[in-house]
Amino acid sequence: MPTLRTSSELLVQIEQALHAQGYATCIPEELYAPIHYTLELGGKRVRPLLCLLSAQLFSADIRPALPMAVALEVFHNFTLLHDDLMDRSPLRRGQPTVYRKWDENTAVLSGDVMSIEAYRALEGIASAELLYRVFPIFNQMAVDICRGQQYDMLFECREDVSTDEYLEMIRLKTAVLLGASMRLGALASGASAEDAERLDEVGQRLGLAFQIQDDYLDVYGDEATFGKPIGGDIMNAKKTLMLLYTREQLEARDLVELDRLMTLGQEHRQERIQGVTALYDKAGAPVYARAQITRLTQEALGILGALSLEPERTAPLVELFDSLASRMS
Amino acid sequence: MPTLRTSSELLVQIEQALHAQGYATCIPEELYAPIHYTLELGGKRVRPLLCLLSAQLFSADIRPALPMAVALEVFHNFTLLHDDLMDRSPLRRGQPTVYRKWDENTAVLSGDVMSIEAYRALEGIASAELLYRVFPIFNQMAVDICRGQQYDMLFECREDVSTDEYLEMIRLKTAVLLGASMRLGALASGASAEDAERLDEVGQRLGLAFQIQDDYLDVYGDEATFGKPIGGDIMNAKKTLMLLYTREQLEARDLVELDRLMTLGQEHRQERIQGVTALYDKAGAPVYARAQITRLTQEALGILGALSLEPERTAPLVELFDSLASRMS
Repeated sequence: MPTLRTSSELLVQIEQALHAQGYATCIPEELYAPIHYTLELGGKRVRPLLCLLSAQLFSADIRPALPMAVALEVFHNFTLLHDDLMDRSPLRRGQPTVYRKWDENTAVLSGDVMSIEAYRALEGIASAELLYRVFPIFNQMAVDICRGQQYDMLFECREDVSTDEYLEMIRLKTAVLLGASMRLGALASGASAEDAERLDEVGQRLGLAFQIQDDYLDVYGDEATFGKPIGGDIMNAKKTLMLLYTREQLEARDLVELDRLMTLGQEHRQERIQGVTALYDKAGAPVYARAQITRLTQEALGILGALSLEPERTAPLVELFDSLASRMS
Repeated sequence: MPTLRTSSELLVQIEQALHAQGYATCIPEELYAPIHYTLELGGKRVRPLLCLLSAQLFSADIRPALPMAVALEVFHNFTLLHDDLMDRSPLRRGQPTVYRKWDENTAVLSGDVMSIEAYRALEGIASAELLYRVFPIFNQMAVDICRGQQYDMLFECREDVSTDEYLEMIRLKTAVLLGASMRLGALASGASAEDAERLDEVGQRLGLAFQIQDDYLDVYGDEATFGKPIGGDIMNAKKTLMLLYTREQLEARDLVELDRLMTLGQEHRQERIQGVTALYDKAGAPVYARAQITRLTQEALGILGALSLEPERTAPLVELFDSLASRMS
């Protein structure tokens, strides 16, 4: 078997490929500077990495997958750019968001061209047949993300969101992109449509598990390793899986107390966070969340294992799942 | 030669194809209702019509061109939706714009998904080879329109825009889409890359001529046939080819007078419009504009004629150019 690249080596290739797009020098500068800025904010490049790791499952030559890897990362960052505008988020990775650093119109139009640049990256696909297979998958993923964002915004105004509705929302908003990343990488390396679809399932479960873990760690995480203050979601009244599950499980009296706690302001921050956490505990929300994460991770590993690939090839992906699990302990 | 369809017959097919996309019933409704609304506002469907007429130049079977026709119209309407948001336009075709009828976030997100739906329409292309040829052309057109809109917004804050800069801006913002419409229609019917590129040139010249004509008629048109009050652009201080040409031609003293007139408010509407028009006349702006329209139309007809197609096939396109000319008289 030819030598496979490590995740760190692949990340170097991803950065090179992103730079090769040349957004820093495209004109008009006013349109492209925010694109360059957004991509330079960094991020873990999880999506292109998943794409290339999935490509390596079937071929040591990851070059055919690079156009997809770039397109996925550019599209992901486009959604962040427009989401920040719609959510009025002032900061992204500690830096001003585009609509704050520039203005709203710049955020709209730079985002628009960024989504098209994602498509343009797919022009690097070397064969007509491959583009023809990839194109509808990319489109469906792109539409699903918008649908997920719409449900997310709609849910903000609703108090009766069920856990099932929430899970479908985060599946659309975040998980399908991880699924598509793995699927497209596999297709680039000549995987069968069936194998690629199975990897899509793996990526979607991984994406759901990641999101639930984020919700979980925001309440039960270690502040030092989590990187932000614990309880932020509770203070922002963010609809997380934990909150929605708790609403589904608690009796009327506890729900009244939950509603009271959620109205407490910043001056009663500790009471609000501790009180809500106690109700989460009473409802069994952390146990439920951990069980979901374990189930999704096990399912993902099961599907991956059933593909009968050499363990050397799947090792980096399994490592990624393990790093997920280790954050929980 | 098999019977060719008339423009009216083609327009029926365009409406059918647009309806077949099913946006009226897509979910979440909050995301797709603005798309359906925007497309239902009507419009002359010039781009899909040009696409199908160009397809008919090379084949009587226009079905392969329908996915492009739909994609072009959906993409065009996406740009209108986001432009209305960025320009804060309250009305479009006499109806409230999306950001006014719903809200800004709806306009952002519905527009986003609308641009992706344009790409999704291209999935109807029946062969991988054709998609592979069409894809980079569509992408380039889409990027160019965004670049044109950016220049348009940048020019609003600049007093020294040249006529050349203006012509390049409207080429990007409006003409490339007409060019791409003709080019993609031709490719769908099996035209050579060279013939398709020539039709792109035809479409771009037509687009430029249309835009200059709009500028011209806003000042020198007949209010009854133009459909809106004469002088609107002058009252809105819109940078038109006429205004920019006049600025380039006039001497300092006249420029001072032009600036004074352009500060007059609604209560001096007549003085402002008549005064500015007199300066346009003095600068020779209407003669210049008509000469540009004539030159562009002649060039377009020349390129079309050089393709050596049967006159029956080119007749509907020539008719379209004639209708352009007749609006001028």
